[in-house]
Amino acid sequence: MRSTVGWQVEGSSSTLRRTPLIRRDLRPDDLAVRVDYCGVCHTDVHAVGARPGEGGRPLVPGHEFTGVVTETGPAVTRFTVGDAVAVGNIVDSCGECAMCRAGQENFCHAFPTLTYDGTDRHDGTPTLGGYSREYVVRDRFAHPLPAALDPAAAAPLLCAGITVWEPLSALGAGPGTRVAVAGLGGLGHLAVKIAVALGADTSVVSRSPDKADDARRLGARDLIVSTDPEQLADARDRFDIVIDTISAPHDLGPYLRLVAMDGTLSHLGHLGPVTVDTIDLLIGRKKLSSAGSGGSRSTAAMLDFCAEHGITADVEVLPSARVNEALDRLRRNDVRYRFVLDLSDLD
Amino acid sequence: MRSTVGWQVEGSSSTLRRTPLIRRDLRPDDLAVRVDYCGVCHTDVHAVGARPGEGGRPLVPGHEFTGVVTETGPAVTRFTVGDAVAVGNIVDSCGECAMCRAGQENFCHAFPTLTYDGTDRHDGTPTLGGYSREYVVRDRFAHPLPAALDPAAAAPLLCAGITVWEPLSALGAGPGTRVAVAGLGGLGHLAVKIAVALGADTSVVSRSPDKADDARRLGARDLIVSTDPEQLADARDRFDIVIDTISAPHDLGPYLRLVAMDGTLSHLGHLGPVTVDTIDLLIGRKKLSSAGSGGSRSTAAMLDFCAEHGITADVEVLPSARVNEALDRLRRNDVRYRFVLDLSDLD
Repeated sequence: MRSTVGWQVEGSSSTLRRTPLIRRDLRPDDLAVRVDYCGVCHTDVHAVGARPGEGGRPLVPGHEFTGVVTETGPAVTRFTVGDAVAVGNIVDSCGECAMCRAGQENFCHAFPTLTYDGTDRHDGTPTLGGYSREYVVRDRFAHPLPAALDPAAAAPLLCAGITVWEPLSALGAGPGTRVAVAGLGGLGHLAVKIAVALGADTSVVSRSPDKADDARRLGARDLIVSTDPEQLADARDRFDIVIDTISAPHDLGPYLRLVAMDGTLSHLGHLGPVTVDTIDLLIGRKKLSSAGSGGSRSTAAMLDFCAEHGITADVEVLPSARVNEALDRLRRNDVRYRFVLDLSDLD
Repeated sequence: MRSTVGWQVEGSSSTLRRTPLIRRDLRPDDLAVRVDYCGVCHTDVHAVGARPGEGGRPLVPGHEFTGVVTETGPAVTRFTVGDAVAVGNIVDSCGECAMCRAGQENFCHAFPTLTYDGTDRHDGTPTLGGYSREYVVRDRFAHPLPAALDPAAAAPLLCAGITVWEPLSALGAGPGTRVAVAGLGGLGHLAVKIAVALGADTSVVSRSPDKADDARRLGARDLIVSTDPEQLADARDRFDIVIDTISAPHDLGPYLRLVAMDGTLSHLGHLGPVTVDTIDLLIGRKKLSSAGSGGSRSTAAMLDFCAEHGITADVEVLPSARVNEALDRLRRNDVRYRFVLDLSDLD
């Protein structure tokens, strides 16, 4: 077994504490990764908040990180020691179902192994995430980090980035399409950058008119204020694709009404039941979809695209010792636009 | 004013009675149509059942009918007396919004005027439907009935037919696509015929294994029994398009799980809220849509297509005096697959 250190919550506490952690000895197709930067995702806030009472298993969050390979198992051929790598929210899958064979391990019929709060499919241990100095990962689920990308600002691409990339690319965002991004946060600001780089005519929908300058700086045409009924009415049926990144539960009706005929609302960052009025789908033959995470094939494509277009997240980097502050501020949406933890302070 | 006769419910009764009716004098762009055949739609059952108590305005159902032009207004150029025509569930719209200009009057921003239980946008009178011997309709909302189509069996194309045609054509059903039709009733049997004629590899999903022979006769490859978990599991992720024609409220989850990656479930024949678990959309990047009715442009295309491929509904034609029996039997799903009223008995 290998020893490292990370930030963990235990029992009913929602405070992360610096804790010694165990990582498995390398299997033949494993890499050991020195984690340098790990993004702070809304999922981490939910996971920390959802801890069961005493008796819950320990939780180490973190599922978008970058680092350097420090050791490889004997069967590893894609990586060598010293390589810059990136890891997202999936670290294993069955490898055999139609979805895995298509490189969409995020849809694995046997459910993928999550980077944290999952269960290793070989030894049954709980997976502990990237808020730690070392991670051991199966080589298929590590991605080469393009040299053009800053390792700190690239970390959020591995969850927020791929989550917006999959629907934008699957729905054909590009020249001649009109994209609206609802919510300008960690996911939203990357959706704007990627949609703009894909060539789509891109707008932002936000309740915060004070984000209009940011929206334009990111490349958006305009910002539609979601609390202004007149602006919403003017934008009716305007967008081929609406990427809804709003993390709090909300009525999808106003956002469906922005979708053009035969267009799609893709609803991100929420798991659980959603209710829509069928009339909001029927009028204009609109479609509702949902997205989150991505497969190995599209993650590789997304990283190449971001390297080519110089896209990373707008980040505020904090020493990992300030992780609880980062989570608190994220709960209040007080970040533009993504916290990244620098884990070198764990040495 | 013009006098005719039809089948009407009044007050809190749900029994239709033979009643003298008034039709408007022809406006310049109106046609008078002798109604020969009118299909009996599930909507009619709902409308009759939803009558308010005493004081509710009179209701004459019927919104899929065929007949012959008997008189034209002076501005009418598309039709002459003696022409065979067909009318669906919309008889007017604003004509000016983007949807009307695109020939999708069913999505008119000012809401289209419904063929019955609507309100005429010029004189404010309630619209009375096709369960009557004469209908007066604006020429833009009458369609030439192709000579190749039997007028009785073609009547259901104007509501059931266009309702399945719009999603099938908008979603690209054709050679190389796999289509499942859930529910084999008035809508479903037409969905199968049209999907097969479009060249799609078509299956039926039904709780009734005894419809397997019918499914194959209609051109389907097979029938998947929806109450058999093993058959549903085998069909997981199999279909690019699932057309859900089940009229009773039901869980969409099992039908979404039949949809292949990037495919769509189109949910017909229900208005109101539906709830889906986002995980059923997310896993496989699936889309939910809803459809009902259609615009003038696609109605014309659908009629041409059906004439070319010899597609009409499988109908049981009854004299209109048996309308209450038809509605009763439709409530019990006791029809294969559509009742059509022969209105000549009203003379």
